[in-house]
Amino acid sequence: MKGEVRLIPLGGLGEFGMNMLLVETDEGIVVIDAGLMLPDPDMPGIDLIIPDISYLVERSDKLAGIVLTHGHDDHIGGLPYMLRRVSAPIYGTKLTLTLLQDKLREFGITEVEMEEVKPGDSIKLGGVEIEFIRVCHSIPDSVALAIHTPAGTIVHSGDFKLDQTPVDGQVMDLHRFAELGRDGVLLLLSDSTNSERPGYSPSERSIFPELDAIFASSRGRIFASTFASSIFRIQQFVELAAKHGRYIAIAGRSMVQNVRIARDLGYLWLPENLTVDLKGVMNLPPEKVMVMTTGSQGEPLSALSLMATDSYKLKIEEGDTVIISARIIPGHEKAIGRIINHLYRRGADVYYERIANVHASGHAYQEELKLMLNLTRPKYFIPIHGEYRQLVHHARIAEGIGIPSRNILIAQDGDVISLREGECYLAGSIPADKVLIDGKAVDGVGDVVLRDRKRMARDGMVIPIVVLDGDGELVAGPDMVSKGFLPEGAEDGLMEEAKKLIIDLLEGMSREEKEEMNAVQEEIRTTLRRFFSKKVDSRPMVIPVVMKV
Amino acid sequence: MKGEVRLIPLGGLGEFGMNMLLVETDEGIVVIDAGLMLPDPDMPGIDLIIPDISYLVERSDKLAGIVLTHGHDDHIGGLPYMLRRVSAPIYGTKLTLTLLQDKLREFGITEVEMEEVKPGDSIKLGGVEIEFIRVCHSIPDSVALAIHTPAGTIVHSGDFKLDQTPVDGQVMDLHRFAELGRDGVLLLLSDSTNSERPGYSPSERSIFPELDAIFASSRGRIFASTFASSIFRIQQFVELAAKHGRYIAIAGRSMVQNVRIARDLGYLWLPENLTVDLKGVMNLPPEKVMVMTTGSQGEPLSALSLMATDSYKLKIEEGDTVIISARIIPGHEKAIGRIINHLYRRGADVYYERIANVHASGHAYQEELKLMLNLTRPKYFIPIHGEYRQLVHHARIAEGIGIPSRNILIAQDGDVISLREGECYLAGSIPADKVLIDGKAVDGVGDVVLRDRKRMARDGMVIPIVVLDGDGELVAGPDMVSKGFLPEGAEDGLMEEAKKLIIDLLEGMSREEKEEMNAVQEEIRTTLRRFFSKKVDSRPMVIPVVMKV
Repeated sequence: MKGEVRLIPLGGLGEFGMNMLLVETDEGIVVIDAGLMLPDPDMPGIDLIIPDISYLVERSDKLAGIVLTHGHDDHIGGLPYMLRRVSAPIYGTKLTLTLLQDKLREFGITEVEMEEVKPGDSIKLGGVEIEFIRVCHSIPDSVALAIHTPAGTIVHSGDFKLDQTPVDGQVMDLHRFAELGRDGVLLLLSDSTNSERPGYSPSERSIFPELDAIFASSRGRIFASTFASSIFRIQQFVELAAKHGRYIAIAGRSMVQNVRIARDLGYLWLPENLTVDLKGVMNLPPEKVMVMTTGSQGEPLSALSLMATDSYKLKIEEGDTVIISARIIPGHEKAIGRIINHLYRRGADVYYERIANVHASGHAYQEELKLMLNLTRPKYFIPIHGEYRQLVHHARIAEGIGIPSRNILIAQDGDVISLREGECYLAGSIPADKVLIDGKAVDGVGDVVLRDRKRMARDGMVIPIVVLDGDGELVAGPDMVSKGFLPEGAEDGLMEEAKKLIIDLLEGMSREEKEEMNAVQEEIRTTLRRFFSKKVDSRPMVIPVVMKV
Repeated sequence: MKGEVRLIPLGGLGEFGMNMLLVETDEGIVVIDAGLMLPDPDMPGIDLIIPDISYLVERSDKLAGIVLTHGHDDHIGGLPYMLRRVSAPIYGTKLTLTLLQDKLREFGITEVEMEEVKPGDSIKLGGVEIEFIRVCHSIPDSVALAIHTPAGTIVHSGDFKLDQTPVDGQVMDLHRFAELGRDGVLLLLSDSTNSERPGYSPSERSIFPELDAIFASSRGRIFASTFASSIFRIQQFVELAAKHGRYIAIAGRSMVQNVRIARDLGYLWLPENLTVDLKGVMNLPPEKVMVMTTGSQGEPLSALSLMATDSYKLKIEEGDTVIISARIIPGHEKAIGRIINHLYRRGADVYYERIANVHASGHAYQEELKLMLNLTRPKYFIPIHGEYRQLVHHARIAEGIGIPSRNILIAQDGDVISLREGECYLAGSIPADKVLIDGKAVDGVGDVVLRDRKRMARDGMVIPIVVLDGDGELVAGPDMVSKGFLPEGAEDGLMEEAKKLIIDLLEGMSREEKEEMNAVQEEIRTTLRRFFSKKVDSRPMVIPVVMKV
């Protein structure tokens, strides 16, 4: 319809991560962010999750461009997968695009058109005008968007917080949000990550004094762990190292890459004469060393985990201090707990969020969310970037500052939101599943595969194999293959009994019955399932194989 | 050695749960608590974990008795499994023993000697005298122990908190701890669960006002979820229901059982005329109903989850209020998050720890831990009941109040602590693994089984099957069975190629080579692993089966 703008969130509305929103007009489609999400611990073998972009692929000729708000993986990490299926120019700030380039190179994707923008710039794309507005977040060069459309102005907050003393001195562009509010905003889309937290988020700078005290009291080496993309956090650690006369080494591939990029582009102050490579660390007295490292989520293959288990060039030893300076992503509590316990066992001292003030969130708390609402004064409001409960809490905050509840939409992935002549409503929905990625090679693991995996993992698997001749006589087997079922010794007698059951079963079947291979398989399956259930109260997956010679 | 007392923790020192401690003298062995632990989310198919009691089984003739501090599963839940291998009289307070009896009955264990004790009682057992001392915790009838031994007095705190206004009015016996301290305590063993938390724990009663406000503002039904063993919490909800004119229904098998037991024994005030069964709830106006339910950890088969997904007699609907009044056990964050999101999607209102003051811990915080140390003034101190980092923090607290660091031992499961003539030292260690329980029938799943399960779950499994005749000629197959590997469509071509590879491989082998079945299997495995790795960058478990006719 002429003048209609359709917003379709493909990710990030109903989960933490894989943020992605389509803005569709008659003239084209603009994609805002294309992130990934980390899998739950109960999704075995899944490396990451991205939005289903089938809708976009079917309309790829309409795709006018991809606009990025900042360089975090939950906003850009889906692109290496999506750019195999669609292509379009990508717009973002300098740091965002450089981080993306690096990532794409790993996947062998080099031919991508990128257009650098600065906060304050505007571009025309797919029938809308998109304006980039500076916000504060845990990575430099983050922007919100004002999307000027035929239906009215949409403000998209990106990920933001109100940091009054940001590490890079670049305060969020409050003035522009105020102007937009004065001129009239039809719809605000705003970051819900911390909508459950009352008050104001502490400034990134606010953790400096506590970190300073830890540095002052540490006699051994200091290992500081955070996300490789948390450039402001890394900057603070660099300043602390300089202040306390420690050389800086970097561990972990993504940390090395990001630090190099951020320094090269001027987003990170890291003087050459303060750095040392990991080998050089060994020749320095412990009190002269700080190692910046990945692994803040307890990932078993991260530099921190490897250093804690002697599987790395450097080892963490008694007397060392480890600072885990990051939020715990839900689902990773156990893994982080394990690494902390392990470090204490080694005799290292460990500081982490639960016991020390060593992390500040990059996302706005409730009072800041109210500020964004009060500045932009939108007619309509849709909370974005959060699990469902966080969207609900954000909706209540909006109601609390006076937006009528009929003008607040809690939308979810796949919902189609229509904007027209100053009105906004839910117009339908499209399929928007999650795509589970297993390795670089596979395009997406289906639900069946994941269900089988969980099933095998929970109960183990037994595969009885028989070979029948043309007369239906058993000529080889039954053989029994089992995995993940019972401990080795415990199985032997049980499997012998199971074999006898199968032999009896086959003997009791006529030649005609045995010609129906599926029926034979089904009989064996049923018999064995009943047998294992009764005998050992267990329900392994039973997959009979019947072969003919 | 004459006069020596040996303490051997078999569980709870280095993990949260499965608490169990042996006290061994020349005359016998006393077991203190025998708990279970919940598995991590990355232990597929494991239902629960208990300590390895091999050491005890080998010395079962010395076993004089089992002493229980309270009725929580992490203190008594291992007994149904252990009592199959050892037997001894069990000592505990009334509620503890009754809860245990109920649990044992489920496992068909009825012939157990139980001796009820009261706080203040003393018993002689295995060469020591054990005194029961009242403490506060989240379940009534909890006790600490003073163990009077030839080597000196040991105080074992059990699980405790200093609740100045306990729900049952029974304050912790501060006087007795003070007397013991005055008379001289050789060793204190004390609960480390909350050693990372500064200050004092809030009283169980302190959450009443906030719950009261939730009840006052709720117009629909209220579903209150907590642990079935949190009798004090249940008591408060009963009082609130009575105050606000709501009938009480109970959902969830363990909740029904525990409420019945606690009421029958007089630990829970629950007047008959306030209760209603689940069917009766349907005929009452929503504002007249409170349902007490299990499921506070988001367990998929709990009453709360079932009610939220229409799989139960009762359904949670728009307008209902759900209160999740329990701590989140680490590892369960994702599951709880899922159920909360789901409830919001239904239109229910949800209160939980993150956003409302609806839970108070049953374990002492740092200042209470100091109080226990200051009252008992032990010569030696060993932190118990906690992950390693919590033991470390508790050790530091002890150092902070003036216990010399050489008198503080951070012991772990399996350590043998020797007490003799007023001295205490680490004397060695015994094997103390965890036993992983899968179902009621199996005694313990080994590491191999768990590793196979994780491996299958992560990468999937492919089983190629060939049948050879006496000349080594292929007479049936290759058949390929695969599970959890690739999505169905994606596999077809790949498996055909794999079959061809196997045929080529067999054709290239001589008759003699093919007589070595293991060698044939190994060749097939190597070939297919290389093939899958190269072709789809994937490493499924490959288990070749070669059969002869």
